[in-house]
Formats: sequence, structure tokens, C-alpha cells
Amino acid sequence: MEYEKTSRNTVKRGRKKASYDKDAIHSILDTNEICTVAFNVDGKAYAQPINYGRSDDYLYLHGSTKNRMTSALMKAGEVCLSVMSLDALKLTRSAFHHSVKFRSAVVFGEVRELTTEEDKLEGLKRIINHFVPGRWDHCRKPNSKELKATRVLEIKITSASAKIADSPPLDEPEDYALDFWAGTIPVKTVYEYPIPDENLKNGVELPSHVLEFYEEKKLKNRRGYWATIVCTSQLQLAGPEAVALFWSANLKC
Amino acid sequence: MEYEKTSRNTVKRGRKKASYDKDAIHSILDTNEICTVAFNVDGKAYAQPINYGRSDDYLYLHGSTKNRMTSALMKAGEVCLSVMSLDALKLTRSAFHHSVKFRSAVVFGEVRELTTEEDKLEGLKRIINHFVPGRWDHCRKPNSKELKATRVLEIKITSASAKIADSPPLDEPEDYALDFWAGTIPVKTVYEYPIPDENLKNGVELPSHVLEFYEEKKLKNRRGYWATIVCTSQLQLAGPEAVALFWSANLKC
Repeated sequence: MEYEKTSRNTVKRGRKKASYDKDAIHSILDTNEICTVAFNVDGKAYAQPINYGRSDDYLYLHGSTKNRMTSALMKAGEVCLSVMSLDALKLTRSAFHHSVKFRSAVVFGEVRELTTEEDKLEGLKRIINHFVPGRWDHCRKPNSKELKATRVLEIKITSASAKIADSPPLDEPEDYALDFWAGTIPVKTVYEYPIPDENLKNGVELPSHVLEFYEEKKLKNRRGYWATIVCTSQLQLAGPEAVALFWSANLKC
Repeated sequence: MEYEKTSRNTVKRGRKKASYDKDAIHSILDTNEICTVAFNVDGKAYAQPINYGRSDDYLYLHGSTKNRMTSALMKAGEVCLSVMSLDALKLTRSAFHHSVKFRSAVVFGEVRELTTEEDKLEGLKRIINHFVPGRWDHCRKPNSKELKATRVLEIKITSASAKIADSPPLDEPEDYALDFWAGTIPVKTVYEYPIPDENLKNGVELPSHVLEFYEEKKLKNRRGYWATIVCTSQLQLAGPEAVALFWSANLKC
């Protein structure tokens, strides 16, 4: 399944790195905790980082009821946001070809404020379970006072694109004779072992959902999980069935 | 030295985490390789990640001459961009107080295209030396053809703000009696040991500027360097001299 290509989400620079595959885009969104939202205030564009949750084709943001960004998004009724994982620095013999390995997604969506207690709780549940899967069932749910102080926005993803760059350093043919060093510096986002709060109640042990979160992050870094996943854009040449097969295999491992 | 507080950069939510200190903001900018730029096309806001360079109060962006983002920035004559480092996930007993440790900066600036070969080279030098310090002297400089294909923008930082959050998980007093686990999952951006390009010319060894870059990144992660640096916002209460002293000590270590 792909997101529709429109004038807004079609990648023009670096088309070979582009993907509109839903699973690829969702996977990049699920790997990250923080996105950067673009919004307008008085006709001027702002960029601001914020955490989010994803469930199917929906994203969720939350903030104080007086928050400038969420107010601007409600006024606009739509949003563009982006996420990016940096995977490596690529150093080449020429200044011109220096580059990075990365996975990024730019998402466009319709914004709707969730107003009933039930809807707000569901939105917040998706944010908390995006943060650490399964967490919602292991913490105190928001009470009426907390819900009243919180604005929850639902974003229906209407279009999106990913860029996935995983190629080795590349130089102009004549530059390979130069004496400059070229190579790759891998970059990894490492989630370390959970540290209990110093005021933790006696007898409360590290729960399995937190341990599993830690183990899964570690596993993905170790296996070079992404080194395989980033082949998606190449796989697309083999057709939608190959992509679906690839993702179903990868999401299980 | 602080950036001036204006209606655009003054932090309204989480004021205690806010800093306008130039050294703090520059340090956050220098730790990161990638920022997210907000820009308008036909009145709609876009968010897009891109690499950058910093030198004093100036940032530098580059792209193809046909790039939509740089075209939009030139048209606007100004820009807002943000960077963020995620340092930890904070899991609390209540859903409401889940949060993250982070260092972010939002920068506002005036945009100017660099048009002479000399200016463009200087801008690109600052981007490459931001990427890996000292790199410019160890690669082939851009030739006229490459320069012609590249647009280089200089951004004069006119105002900016940082948010630095490093406090431990905090819950409502009555929630400490609950049986839910609370704690911190530290997150680190790890730069691994440089891998030589497989087509590297025989006899070319890993240069000291690349090794030093690797060692410095490793050292900062090991020492919990940021655990001390993030005290800046508290230090400001002690006055500008304390901040200056703190930074001069920290930047040397």
C-alpha cells in the first residue's frame, strides 16, 4: 500500500531514495519518539519538536490547552511534520559528495481536535503506547482534571513520503586517485538499560514491557536491522508483492 | 551573552527549561548534524530535515539550485529552524507525567544567498567543518562546476531559544504509593568507529581529524558530559559571570 503522490509530497530531489510505501513510512514513524511540526503564526513558519503517537494512518499530538503550536494547527486544519533517523556520516574524497545515511519521513495530514473524554483518552493511550509499547496498561490513567488541561489532536495522514539513504560513499571517478581518506562513521541511537526512579516503591520490579522495549531496541541496533530494511526502495522495483513479503518477514524478526 | 527575547522566540510553555544563553544554544547546534527547517509554499507550512553548519552567529544551508526549500527561504528572507537531542525517556506512575530529557534549540534568522565563488566556498567550508571538524583541509575543494550547481544560504541568527530538560521523573504526591514502575531510559547518540571506504587508495590511513572526532563523541557520551552542561539554566540564576565561567570550563574538558 502506498500513499498517493500529490504536488505536496512528491520528492523532487533524490528521487531514487524516495518511497511512498505505507509500511516503510510507518516503520520510520514508529522508530522515532520525536517529530518536528511546521506551523504558521501570522504568516510566518515555525519549526518545533514534539513527541507523538501513531496508530494506523493516524498520528496524535498533545499539549497544554494554551499551546501556541496546537492552536495554530487547529486554525490551519492541516499539518506537515517530519521525522529523521541519522544512520551514518559519509566522508568522501571531494567536499561535494559528503553526505549521510538516513531514514526520514515527511507527513501531511488533516488536524482534528479530540474533545470528548473518551476520544482524548484513546488519543493519549496511543501516544503513551507509541512511547513505550504496552505502557498504558501499566500507569495511572489521566483523571478529569488532567484531561481538561490537555489538548489532544488527531492527524489523519493524507499523504506522506519517505527518503531512505543507505548507499556507500561515492566519488567522481578521477578522485579515487587522491590521497584523501574516505569512509563511513555509523551513528546509532542507543537506548540504555532502564534506571529505576530513586523514589520507587519497595518491591516494584522492572516490568516486562519496559525490559522488552529495551531488548528490542538493542536487538535492532545489533542486527543492523535497518541495513536490511532500507532495501525497500530497491525492492519496490520488484513490485508490491515483494515489498509486502519483505515487510511481513522483517516486522516479525 | 544572550539572544534578545522577542515575541517569536520567548518560551511560554516550560519556562523553567528555557535558556537564551548564546553558548548553550551554540553548543546544542554544534552537537547536532541535522536541523528541521520550516518554510512556506503557497501559504502552507512545510517541515524538512537538512544538514547545516554553524560559525559564530551564522548558520549555513546548501542544496541544489532548484531546491524547493532554499527557494522558499530566499523568497521569505527569513527562517525558523529547530534541532533536538533526545537524552532519555522518563516513565512515571501517571500517564500524565511521562516526559523526556532533551536539549532543543529553535533559531530565527535572516536568510541571504551567497553568490560569489569566494563566499560560497566559505559557506561550504563551514558546513563541512561542522560535519567533522577540520575536514575541509582533508578533501578536494568544490570546483566551478560543482559550485555552480550548489546554492549556499547564510542565516544570520537574529533570535533563538533553547530548552534543556534534565530533571528526574516526577509524579503527584499521592501516586508514589501506586505499584507502577517509574524510571528513566537513557538515550544516547553513538558515533561508531570509522569504517574505511572499500575503494580506499592503498596506504591511506585513518586521519587524525576523523579519529579525534570519534574520540570526542565517545568521551562526551562516557562522561555524561551533558549531565553537567544541562545545569546552565539553573546557573543563570547565579548571574552571567557564573554562566561564562561554567562554559569556559566545560568547553575545555
